[in-house]
Amino acid sequence: MRYLITFKYDGTNYSGYQKQPNAVTIQGVLEEVLTRINSNKKVLVSASGRTDAHVHALGQRAHFDLDISIGIEELKRALNSLLPNDIYVTNVEMVDNNFHARFDVKQKKYIYKINIGEYNPLDRNYIYQYNSSLNIEKMKEAFQYLMGEHNFKTFTKTTAEIKDYIRTIHDIKLDLKDSIITIEFIGNGFLRYMVRNMVGTLIAVGEGKIDPRQIEEMLEKEDRREALKTASPEGLYLAEVYY
Amino acid sequence: MRYLITFKYDGTNYSGYQKQPNAVTIQGVLEEVLTRINSNKKVLVSASGRTDAHVHALGQRAHFDLDISIGIEELKRALNSLLPNDIYVTNVEMVDNNFHARFDVKQKKYIYKINIGEYNPLDRNYIYQYNSSLNIEKMKEAFQYLMGEHNFKTFTKTTAEIKDYIRTIHDIKLDLKDSIITIEFIGNGFLRYMVRNMVGTLIAVGEGKIDPRQIEEMLEKEDRREALKTASPEGLYLAEVYY
Repeated sequence: MRYLITFKYDGTNYSGYQKQPNAVTIQGVLEEVLTRINSNKKVLVSASGRTDAHVHALGQRAHFDLDISIGIEELKRALNSLLPNDIYVTNVEMVDNNFHARFDVKQKKYIYKINIGEYNPLDRNYIYQYNSSLNIEKMKEAFQYLMGEHNFKTFTKTTAEIKDYIRTIHDIKLDLKDSIITIEFIGNGFLRYMVRNMVGTLIAVGEGKIDPRQIEEMLEKEDRREALKTASPEGLYLAEVYY
Repeated sequence: MRYLITFKYDGTNYSGYQKQPNAVTIQGVLEEVLTRINSNKKVLVSASGRTDAHVHALGQRAHFDLDISIGIEELKRALNSLLPNDIYVTNVEMVDNNFHARFDVKQKKYIYKINIGEYNPLDRNYIYQYNSSLNIEKMKEAFQYLMGEHNFKTFTKTTAEIKDYIRTIHDIKLDLKDSIITIEFIGNGFLRYMVRNMVGTLIAVGEGKIDPRQIEEMLEKEDRREALKTASPEGLYLAEVYY
């Protein structure tokens, strides 16, 4: 049987989602726990995509196959009792054997949080501590240049495995509340570091270092060296995955 | 010169505020950093009161004397650059040599946060994960029995050093937003575990295990065995200290 799970995690203590030798990863922990549940027959987990070290998830999704027969509520309880307390499964469903958590993604929503007020030690692992003012109106003005279909090569790390850098951003929203900026990105897919690089560029816009219109040029050059600072990982959340 | 500092901390990784041998404490870290600033002449720090292991502070206050001459802004910068990133000084002021951060306290405000919604791994160190519904109206009804001047022996750990268990609670407020209950307590002083024991009792009221009116009796018995579960530390914040 193939199962699809939706789960949250606090990425603070993980070297990212993807399994790596000699590092604690979300995928590694999930596969270990699922293998135990599956009577010690190895389980491989396929998520909607990876998240980098210290990045969080509010609605990550992944599929896997189990050999044993177990109901969805029972599986949810078993997972949550065996997983460490910084990973929590919010939903388990059964899916067709041809469903794929990565290939079938229609859209994803990412959230990035920035504190423009005073440093807050309690939020240091969950909100990027920029701790200085930003021109919000200018940042919002920049959204139009990122939205739509573009080649996002400027905003990612190019690797041989990626052939296609074209992605579509359907919506970007910004909310400011109690000195916390929350930027929401919805798109059909996001390349590695793409959200954090876009946020780095939006911060440069908010600082007045670049003009919103320059983003158009930056995208056209299709060159990573055009992009500005990569925003730090702790402000980033994979919020939702839509199939 | 005597200085008064206001500071925030994330209590997650500390064995509480008060200095102890072989344990990392807020006071221990502060004194170590201040001693370095004070040209290695030992500095003793007196806070408004202790907080227990894993309890947080949004507005803890403490005084100390320095032998060196340093301006308040410079001292704030020096402290924040030397302190670990889970402690942050928000204000430094100079005070009279007879000012005392503990003896001069007029009132304190504590906050306690409870998640009555689904478990959230991202908040596990900052909000008590009760994760089940509570009768908010009954809890509010109970406030009247805790407010005012009472002997709070039932709600504390009795020790030889404490002679006077009489405290006055001026105000208790409850706010519910997005499944997070925030209870605010303002009083002229709080005994050890007093807020967490009151919250434990309020949770028992919210569960329907006891009637709000029973609190009156519980207080009158002046016996710790009358109180219910001590609510866990991670939901508690020392929010403000008033002089």
